[in-house]
Amino acid sequence: MTDARVAGVGLTHFGTYPDRTGRDLFAEAAVRALDDAGIAPNAVEEVHYGNFMGELAEHQGHQGPLVAEAAGVSAPATRYESACASSGAAVRETVRNVRNGEVDVALVGGAERMNNLGTAGATEALAIAADDLYEVRAGMTFPGAYALMARAYFREFGGSRSDLAAIAVKNHRHALPNEHAQYRSEISVEDVLEAPMVADPLGLYDSCPLTDGASAVVLVSEAYAAERDLDTPVSITGTGQGGDRMALQDREHLARSPAAEEAAAEAYADAGIDAADVAVAEVHDCFTIAEVLAIESLGLAKHGAGIGAARRGETTADGDRPVNLSGGLKAKGHPVGATGTSQIAELTRLLRGDHPNSDHVDGTVGVAHNAGGTVASAVVHVLEVEP
Amino acid sequence: MTDARVAGVGLTHFGTYPDRTGRDLFAEAAVRALDDAGIAPNAVEEVHYGNFMGELAEHQGHQGPLVAEAAGVSAPATRYESACASSGAAVRETVRNVRNGEVDVALVGGAERMNNLGTAGATEALAIAADDLYEVRAGMTFPGAYALMARAYFREFGGSRSDLAAIAVKNHRHALPNEHAQYRSEISVEDVLEAPMVADPLGLYDSCPLTDGASAVVLVSEAYAAERDLDTPVSITGTGQGGDRMALQDREHLARSPAAEEAAAEAYADAGIDAADVAVAEVHDCFTIAEVLAIESLGLAKHGAGIGAARRGETTADGDRPVNLSGGLKAKGHPVGATGTSQIAELTRLLRGDHPNSDHVDGTVGVAHNAGGTVASAVVHVLEVEP
Repeated sequence: MTDARVAGVGLTHFGTYPDRTGRDLFAEAAVRALDDAGIAPNAVEEVHYGNFMGELAEHQGHQGPLVAEAAGVSAPATRYESACASSGAAVRETVRNVRNGEVDVALVGGAERMNNLGTAGATEALAIAADDLYEVRAGMTFPGAYALMARAYFREFGGSRSDLAAIAVKNHRHALPNEHAQYRSEISVEDVLEAPMVADPLGLYDSCPLTDGASAVVLVSEAYAAERDLDTPVSITGTGQGGDRMALQDREHLARSPAAEEAAAEAYADAGIDAADVAVAEVHDCFTIAEVLAIESLGLAKHGAGIGAARRGETTADGDRPVNLSGGLKAKGHPVGATGTSQIAELTRLLRGDHPNSDHVDGTVGVAHNAGGTVASAVVHVLEVEP
Repeated sequence: MTDARVAGVGLTHFGTYPDRTGRDLFAEAAVRALDDAGIAPNAVEEVHYGNFMGELAEHQGHQGPLVAEAAGVSAPATRYESACASSGAAVRETVRNVRNGEVDVALVGGAERMNNLGTAGATEALAIAADDLYEVRAGMTFPGAYALMARAYFREFGGSRSDLAAIAVKNHRHALPNEHAQYRSEISVEDVLEAPMVADPLGLYDSCPLTDGASAVVLVSEAYAAERDLDTPVSITGTGQGGDRMALQDREHLARSPAAEEAAAEAYADAGIDAADVAVAEVHDCFTIAEVLAIESLGLAKHGAGIGAARRGETTADGDRPVNLSGGLKAKGHPVGATGTSQIAELTRLLRGDHPNSDHVDGTVGVAHNAGGTVASAVVHVLEVEP
């Protein structure tokens, strides 16, 4: 088995693009990733692409060949849809294919347009990541679902809105130097607590924004990197995936994410690491409470201890193990289908030293946690940089 | 590398199910496939699922975990969307994962609901498999696109509506004994020629119907099959995928399908066979002209000779190399996301001898051809039965 080496990464700025298409956004990210890799588009052998709501936002399915063409790539292309973990799922199958020798040069990425739907339209589109029959038709939206999870957490383990606020404050601060971030403005705990309530206990600043954007990563085999003398210090050394029942009412726990726990266990075993080895993590903080569940699932905090991690400074830039140095979904933004590969792109730059927040990384192992829906799907990847 | 053995297959009847959901249809197919395999749901390690228009037909994305749960399976699940080749794409990644030792027991399948959208709604939903900006907004629908391809073929190679009609007549005849087929009625060349025109030169009987249905296949590793002493005479021995530019106006040829040619070449090389070895084929005849392009892409007829193959009796049940013994998309039906795995299921039964049309198979090699859109995506698989 060969390594899956990260040859290059590319991102658009995350924000609002009323005049650009998903394919156009993906092309920008892909060209950047190929430039970063020093690899020509015609060397790409396969494209694996994640997108969630293209049918609703752009009246467009079958996006694989469309985005490959937009990126200037002539190669077979497959689209993966796993809600907010769509490009994480694409990364997983790409990593497997590179490591197993099925492909030497693969382009994996994702894109999403959301703002053209408006807030109500995007909220409705996001809801199709939940069970339409048994959740959505009962009135559930994602802020509501995560509010239920937050309340369950508070009841089981304690914690407060101020604890959650510390996560939002942290991630906004992390985003300040990130040129790709949607929001580069500092906020205070008071700002979070005084913001309009969205779904009690989650307020506006507990929630990630609607984001348009794209991300791309070029993965190559060890042999290809060696032949071309490419500079590929970072590899994806572990992959894991977990699943859970779709609807919250069918779950045993609302304050835990077994799918992410399974994905993490598999990814760590695959990489031959454990949680103590992790120096930096990008996790799926679509809401502040989601970061709590994520770091507990990854074993970066014990169950019940994740809620205080940001407040105690454990996960801040200057803490022992920073979480979401990119700004996370909360401040960097969450173009749903692009988020999985965006995490891989940010971690790659953090580990190889060319990210504005690289100085805060003390170690060689990073972990990416990408979740779909209320974590009915989860994908975890381990990245390692040569020491 | 281990074999990817077909342990079991399952299908719903293909037809119209106004009162059933996609997950319910998939559960029926999956339970049948697991029963056929003699494998319990809790042995399944991964689910790979194809669906095309769930967002539009059922207001449902994130169907991976939903259909796994419906099938009684607790395992990570990923949804693939590649238009009409969605479950073909899912099969491809599943085959790779089984052969590479990533998984021992995988469930792969697909489902689609279409009839609840009505004819106009389904036609509009199908159109998102084309380029929304440059084809759909100009008024293109799929019957129109395939009519353009048929006209280009006639101009380049000759042929007539009667030649195409012979394909429809053949596939209806093949469907007669198939208990899963949507249409089990014989038609004549005159019926085809006198039917209402849909998009000249394609009439109603040149077009596949709108179909609700599901299909599932259980793939296992050689070691798993041996340990459990499973009866798995059929293996998927070759996989290939090709891509093309999305919009017809960007293609060099309208009367050829380079994506399918590439997919076939890769699959044949992977299996170590060539076209002459193929005894039976299931191909993507969404329109009669599509079967012509498919068999030429697969090398089962020379370019320009495919149009007469059914008329000459080469591809009929009693011909040298029967094509679409299931009835094909034309008569068996085309629940889009289910078609790729449905072809694998039919070929498996044809090769192992328990299909009502098995007596017409003279050989050990079958090939499945699954296409997306106007063949901007294509997936080809080779199946072989132990002699």
